[in-house]
Amino acid sequence: MANRKILLSENETPDKWYNIVADMPNKPLPPLHPGTKEPIGPEALAPLFPMELIKQEVSADKWIDIPDEVVNIYSLWRPTPLYRAYNFEKMLDTPAKIYYKYEGVSPSGSHKPNTAVAQAYYNKQEGVKRITTETGAGQWGSALSFACNLFDIACEVYMVKISYEQKPYRKLMMNTWGADVIASPSDQTQAGREILNQDPNSPGSLGIAISEAVEKAAMDENTKYSLGSVLNHVLMHQTIVGQEALLQMEKAGDMPDIVIAPFGGGSNFAGLTFPFLRLNFDEGKSIRCIASEPASCPKLTRGVFRYDFGDTVGMTPLLPMYTLGHNFVPAPIHAGGLRYHGAGVVVSQLLKDKLIEAQSHDQLECFDVGVKFAKAEGIIPAPEANHGIATVVQEAMKCKEEGVSKTILFNLCGHGNFDMAAYEAYFNGGLVKHEVTTEDINASLAKLNTPEIN
Amino acid sequence: MANRKILLSENETPDKWYNIVADMPNKPLPPLHPGTKEPIGPEALAPLFPMELIKQEVSADKWIDIPDEVVNIYSLWRPTPLYRAYNFEKMLDTPAKIYYKYEGVSPSGSHKPNTAVAQAYYNKQEGVKRITTETGAGQWGSALSFACNLFDIACEVYMVKISYEQKPYRKLMMNTWGADVIASPSDQTQAGREILNQDPNSPGSLGIAISEAVEKAAMDENTKYSLGSVLNHVLMHQTIVGQEALLQMEKAGDMPDIVIAPFGGGSNFAGLTFPFLRLNFDEGKSIRCIASEPASCPKLTRGVFRYDFGDTVGMTPLLPMYTLGHNFVPAPIHAGGLRYHGAGVVVSQLLKDKLIEAQSHDQLECFDVGVKFAKAEGIIPAPEANHGIATVVQEAMKCKEEGVSKTILFNLCGHGNFDMAAYEAYFNGGLVKHEVTTEDINASLAKLNTPEIN
Repeated sequence: MANRKILLSENETPDKWYNIVADMPNKPLPPLHPGTKEPIGPEALAPLFPMELIKQEVSADKWIDIPDEVVNIYSLWRPTPLYRAYNFEKMLDTPAKIYYKYEGVSPSGSHKPNTAVAQAYYNKQEGVKRITTETGAGQWGSALSFACNLFDIACEVYMVKISYEQKPYRKLMMNTWGADVIASPSDQTQAGREILNQDPNSPGSLGIAISEAVEKAAMDENTKYSLGSVLNHVLMHQTIVGQEALLQMEKAGDMPDIVIAPFGGGSNFAGLTFPFLRLNFDEGKSIRCIASEPASCPKLTRGVFRYDFGDTVGMTPLLPMYTLGHNFVPAPIHAGGLRYHGAGVVVSQLLKDKLIEAQSHDQLECFDVGVKFAKAEGIIPAPEANHGIATVVQEAMKCKEEGVSKTILFNLCGHGNFDMAAYEAYFNGGLVKHEVTTEDINASLAKLNTPEIN
Repeated sequence: MANRKILLSENETPDKWYNIVADMPNKPLPPLHPGTKEPIGPEALAPLFPMELIKQEVSADKWIDIPDEVVNIYSLWRPTPLYRAYNFEKMLDTPAKIYYKYEGVSPSGSHKPNTAVAQAYYNKQEGVKRITTETGAGQWGSALSFACNLFDIACEVYMVKISYEQKPYRKLMMNTWGADVIASPSDQTQAGREILNQDPNSPGSLGIAISEAVEKAAMDENTKYSLGSVLNHVLMHQTIVGQEALLQMEKAGDMPDIVIAPFGGGSNFAGLTFPFLRLNFDEGKSIRCIASEPASCPKLTRGVFRYDFGDTVGMTPLLPMYTLGHNFVPAPIHAGGLRYHGAGVVVSQLLKDKLIEAQSHDQLECFDVGVKFAKAEGIIPAPEANHGIATVVQEAMKCKEEGVSKTILFNLCGHGNFDMAAYEAYFNGGLVKHEVTTEDINASLAKLNTPEIN
């Protein structure tokens, strides 16, 4: 048996992020002002983000240097390992070769610190004293808490109240790294107070938490806001994942036919697949890249390509995205990181142009393959990661039926150590399928009065 | 800055365990029969353990081959990384160089699978169908569940009832890997039923859980018992840790002056330090090896060297060990893995012969340095690991006072992802010191009627 684990040394770490915008045949459409619905420029983002991140957001440069200080912090856990899943292949009895990139070795246990560290760095460079953000399940909030601590920036995390109460350990992780975690809706913002006036027992939502974090940042010039997915610069920071994986696949003497990653807002998917899509652009390869989304929140497979708001309240610029409508309320599935109504702009354009594919899976199927994977490979995956595994199994079974051996690579974006309650629900038969009806989707889309895209 | 992370490739993995018994100037004294108090031979262990493990338990061979199948499974997470703790050094403002071996990358999150996999392998070789064990905090039970699953052996874990109720996620982890987890005391054994008759609400104890697991194994010829520390073969399996670390230190062009590891029963400590002690034996080096134990359970620093039972009930052979007495009840500190009254036989003899040292730390000091470490290095350590860090800080501060730079290596034996409730108690001021009075120790030792050692 060849090596199971393919490692890189620190000096093999990529020192640039890959900006796929440079290679896209159709560039993303511009964001629109939420009020005037006219295209807006980068200056509109200045109250919320440091200039260097805004420059990255609109950059057409193919490569952007990773600052030395960020590379240095990445080395706390990067390069992450790439594994050949020999045991899982054997369990599935498939001729496919399955590899996975494992991002669960980061301090907060997912790929999220790749962008959190970069964002904290650029904020520090510009003298920012505090960063606000929102978090649902807590993966993003803990990543940003970790990153801010290293740069001595105060971090204020608005955590959806029901998660705050149900996931005390995620909150404690953030506290350990010195962050303030505030149950949202809170009395610390106008937005929060208004919600609490209407409903003192509001369980909160990601949309409300975003409003609170944005409001807090907009009110104070020393405070900025940070987002964990969706935006171009966030997706680009994650390309360190796929670039490492590419080097590792070369070391293994192999190259994927199919690259698969879970899909929430796009950062997980972009991180692994964009460097392989680059090979399609640059070298004429035809590597299939598949986004795995929950059947309960199927924006890529059943949504529309249209301008929509990034948040529920409708405060953000309008973005050209695959969306289920910003009022769409996804079912309370256990993959909290995938419960988002829209898809990042760049990924949406790629899907529109048929340069990537998408698959949806219900959560019962996902936990079923997740437990199988844990038994074969040892690692208990995060519920988000299980969606990618479901697509892997589907493609591996197709290989078996067709008697062909394809090479499949997927992003094991995080471990499930903080998600065991979800596994408990699965074992106890307490999980349901949560499929969405076409009527539900149509009803949500019917409410949209945002500009359509021809 | 030189590399932060020192990695080995799979083909650099050691293929033998190191058996320190071969090099000890004074060999361990023999175990005694619990009834006759006469020395017993290996055959007395046959009802509980497979022959190959019993052979290892009494072996005087210096090196024992690691079976290919075990090496193959080790490669799921081994070799583990060795890190230079640059950030922590800077935070402590010490001239000392601090390195740590990180065992938290294993599937169950600690060093425990190193022996669990080996034990499951030898049991499988001899046709064993089921393995029983006990677990307190859950680190050992989850490691054995993981290992048994890979060899298709049924695993039955008697988990101390109060932990079973307080740590549902550890239990779920074991379930995910297919183990049966039974709250102890249970109605499934004579020992359990007797306890329940006396006290239906008994919270259980490690001593009771051991009795249940041993009874279940002794009753069925297809079932064996497995222990996660204390015994010679268990300690030996862990030497893979220190052997890797030795190769990694050589790669880093450095060599430790001081090697530090937390101490419960000895497997964590033995794993990292024995391969360095070998250099003292073979090459005349004088590397200091320090065991870090809790102030609330100070068998090495305040116990006596004497024959004592391995369990609370007094069913096991009498072992020559540093002990606080088998009736000693350690305070309910959060480092559950260190709450054991005695020390492994080999480690006890080494301490008696002044070939190793020991230090004790109270849990407030431990959590204080643990949080500092998490802020500097990103990883949130298990409460057990914090004890090692406390000794590291002590030695690093000594370097600063004396103006000398020493090289310190310690075992970061596991992550704290399942221990956030302990951190919560620390943050809330809910942790107390739990120091032990000399009267408490004397009272426990006064009850011993086991043979003394001259």
